[in-house]
Amino acid sequence: MAINISNFLNSQFRKSKMSDFQDLEHIDGLSISTASANLYNNSRDDVVLFYFRDGVNYASVYTQSKIVSENIKWNLNLKNKKIRALLINTRNANAFTGKKGFLGLKEIAEELSLELTAKQKKDEQKPEKIKSNQILFGCTGTIGEPYPTEKIKNSISNLIEKIRYTQNKYIWIKAALGIMTTDLSPKLAMEECKIGNTNINIYGIAKGSGMIFPNMATTLGYIFTDADLSSNILKKLLKKNIETTFNAISCDGDTSTNDMVSIFSTAKAKHNKINNINDEKLKDFDSSLHKVLLNLAKRVAADGEGASKFVTVNVRNSKNQLDAKKVAFSIANSPLVKTAISGLDPNWGRIVMAIGKANVNINLNKLSIKIGHIKIVEKGQLLSSYIESDAQVYMKEEKKIDLFIDLNMGNKNFTAYTMDLTKKYIEINADYRT
Amino acid sequence: MAINISNFLNSQFRKSKMSDFQDLEHIDGLSISTASANLYNNSRDDVVLFYFRDGVNYASVYTQSKIVSENIKWNLNLKNKKIRALLINTRNANAFTGKKGFLGLKEIAEELSLELTAKQKKDEQKPEKIKSNQILFGCTGTIGEPYPTEKIKNSISNLIEKIRYTQNKYIWIKAALGIMTTDLSPKLAMEECKIGNTNINIYGIAKGSGMIFPNMATTLGYIFTDADLSSNILKKLLKKNIETTFNAISCDGDTSTNDMVSIFSTAKAKHNKINNINDEKLKDFDSSLHKVLLNLAKRVAADGEGASKFVTVNVRNSKNQLDAKKVAFSIANSPLVKTAISGLDPNWGRIVMAIGKANVNINLNKLSIKIGHIKIVEKGQLLSSYIESDAQVYMKEEKKIDLFIDLNMGNKNFTAYTMDLTKKYIEINADYRT
Repeated sequence: MAINISNFLNSQFRKSKMSDFQDLEHIDGLSISTASANLYNNSRDDVVLFYFRDGVNYASVYTQSKIVSENIKWNLNLKNKKIRALLINTRNANAFTGKKGFLGLKEIAEELSLELTAKQKKDEQKPEKIKSNQILFGCTGTIGEPYPTEKIKNSISNLIEKIRYTQNKYIWIKAALGIMTTDLSPKLAMEECKIGNTNINIYGIAKGSGMIFPNMATTLGYIFTDADLSSNILKKLLKKNIETTFNAISCDGDTSTNDMVSIFSTAKAKHNKINNINDEKLKDFDSSLHKVLLNLAKRVAADGEGASKFVTVNVRNSKNQLDAKKVAFSIANSPLVKTAISGLDPNWGRIVMAIGKANVNINLNKLSIKIGHIKIVEKGQLLSSYIESDAQVYMKEEKKIDLFIDLNMGNKNFTAYTMDLTKKYIEINADYRT
Repeated sequence: MAINISNFLNSQFRKSKMSDFQDLEHIDGLSISTASANLYNNSRDDVVLFYFRDGVNYASVYTQSKIVSENIKWNLNLKNKKIRALLINTRNANAFTGKKGFLGLKEIAEELSLELTAKQKKDEQKPEKIKSNQILFGCTGTIGEPYPTEKIKNSISNLIEKIRYTQNKYIWIKAALGIMTTDLSPKLAMEECKIGNTNINIYGIAKGSGMIFPNMATTLGYIFTDADLSSNILKKLLKKNIETTFNAISCDGDTSTNDMVSIFSTAKAKHNKINNINDEKLKDFDSSLHKVLLNLAKRVAADGEGASKFVTVNVRNSKNQLDAKKVAFSIANSPLVKTAISGLDPNWGRIVMAIGKANVNINLNKLSIKIGHIKIVEKGQLLSSYIESDAQVYMKEEKKIDLFIDLNMGNKNFTAYTMDLTKKYIEINADYRT
């Protein structure tokens, strides 16, 4: 299962053309290198280094699981507001690896900070010492296996050799490929926006998903911008925008051991200082960040393991947001709804059942349901005009299935993103380690 | 997909021998008849009538879903402490069928009570008029399709013709077959016990399962006894024993639209009057009832759609029962754990992940995990003595996979029952209506 840029160009690329990806190019102050630490015992790139030569402000949100991976413990321990590098490895989640796993990261961070300090001395006019507590880690893969500290440590020289101070589309794709586990496509997104009159870039990569069920995936998302924002503002922006994006996909993984979404700002763009999140000048950045996060989150959902359909669950006119979210996820997480979709069966009875089990007070006499443009239930009544074969045709022909549930009880909405449940899912997960 | 006694004897019977079933025989005061109302458009029995010639005390527990089927609304409406008949149909859940579905039941109840009154006049020395509000209904099948009132009404004469006042093993199997939907085997269980010096029978049938995921199945369970117990005591006994039996299987369906477990007592056994649930004389009955319910619940779990393995999740030494239950269900409901089991992969990392997402405070340093007899993790440490291939052999050779999770934090236990997740599950549920 070698995944590297050339394999990708040769095989998967046939499915997703180069033009499917936006043109991520250069963000000042950031360098990307990818390498193989041979974690998969083949030549695929499995370690990715983001090196920030002048440091970055950053913010992260992490899994809500009671058992977190060692790298998340490491990250939470960092007291620095500025960091110098993000190192991501696949294949091994470094979860339930105990003290050894944590010490492995320490060893790697020490080696990496040493080699990066040497790199600074070579490349910079005013070199700075890089400390081990300025390294952030992302890990994803199997839980409970010994962390391959040595292999990763041995890949550092290679990663550092590959550091270049300008980036292009290919290196972004390589980075997105390098963090994949069972994903089928790399996930990239970008937006351009303005803070005041200054042009700002927001780039991001993500890996899914894997698991199409809630709270189970290792989702990693990394956003990079040249804006000059404080860690505090980055934190607020990230928290605000994560709810309707990465936390709105049913593989949101908000309780896996390893989930992590981070934003890094290199501060290379020169714009007016932003002192608080309500600053008018931040509006465009805010909505562009939302777009990048949503774009990535949808790609994660659409690439859920074994998925044949991308599904949006649009719950409308709920009394409050929480109820809308509960109903949306109850449907999005229902294996019966998801298997019906994979079977191209407009089995709206299962949607009703999923609404029923959401533990939300609803008024059946107000409930309306549409699959795509096809009205099925209106104000609690199955429409006599409903022709099942219409819905079947819609489900067969569309790659993206939209479910609309109107509760007609208020004005709050929530949209959840998910995919269907197929035999392929079982295949992938029954054989994950073999 | 014709399922009737002869098909069963000819085909499925090869898998499950007659001797697999306990010898349910006669319970005084009860008659069973089964028929085909042609709900499946083939000859399989799809309606089952339990007729209680002298009435019975009874108690039921129902689904917790916010959307309940019309038959459950009907049942909850009955003000009678004594009922005269239980009529069960498959193929159509009578859920989301609105007023029409409810009125259908009313029509059927009226016809059935008329015909049963006529039967009383023919058979009884002191015939009693049977009223429509003395009929209890069980429904299971597809949600949202019009309820086949006429077809079921037309089957009543046939059901009444078939009434016999003695029962044997075959008629019990026919009844258990007659209430099946996607189940592969009929589910029957029995215990003999004593109240005082009097022999008492407790018989039961159930249908699953279907869906192996929580809160999604239509589970029906019906328990019959010749004990003489009030509705009030039956209610308390049922509530007390349901938690660790039908509510301990991950297809417990406690929020599907149709779930229902009932107990009926014909009061034909002559024993000392029982006035309250703490009466010493009730102990044997209580534990026997638990055995019957657990036996049926396990059969429901083991026959989950597409299941190849029956799985018990034994959580030990939790601080409190609720935590133990949360951890047990988090594992039992994890598609990743369940697919690993179907792939014969002792992926204990996924068990750790499922424990982590249970939202229970645990001390990792105290956690121990065994798969079957094989110790894997002890007090938070992966054992160096653990040999993965041992666990693989165990998983391959056993039909029943036991997972043991010791939290070592208290003395409360909970066991959940479930099955693995296979491609067959997807197949069944993607094609359910076709």
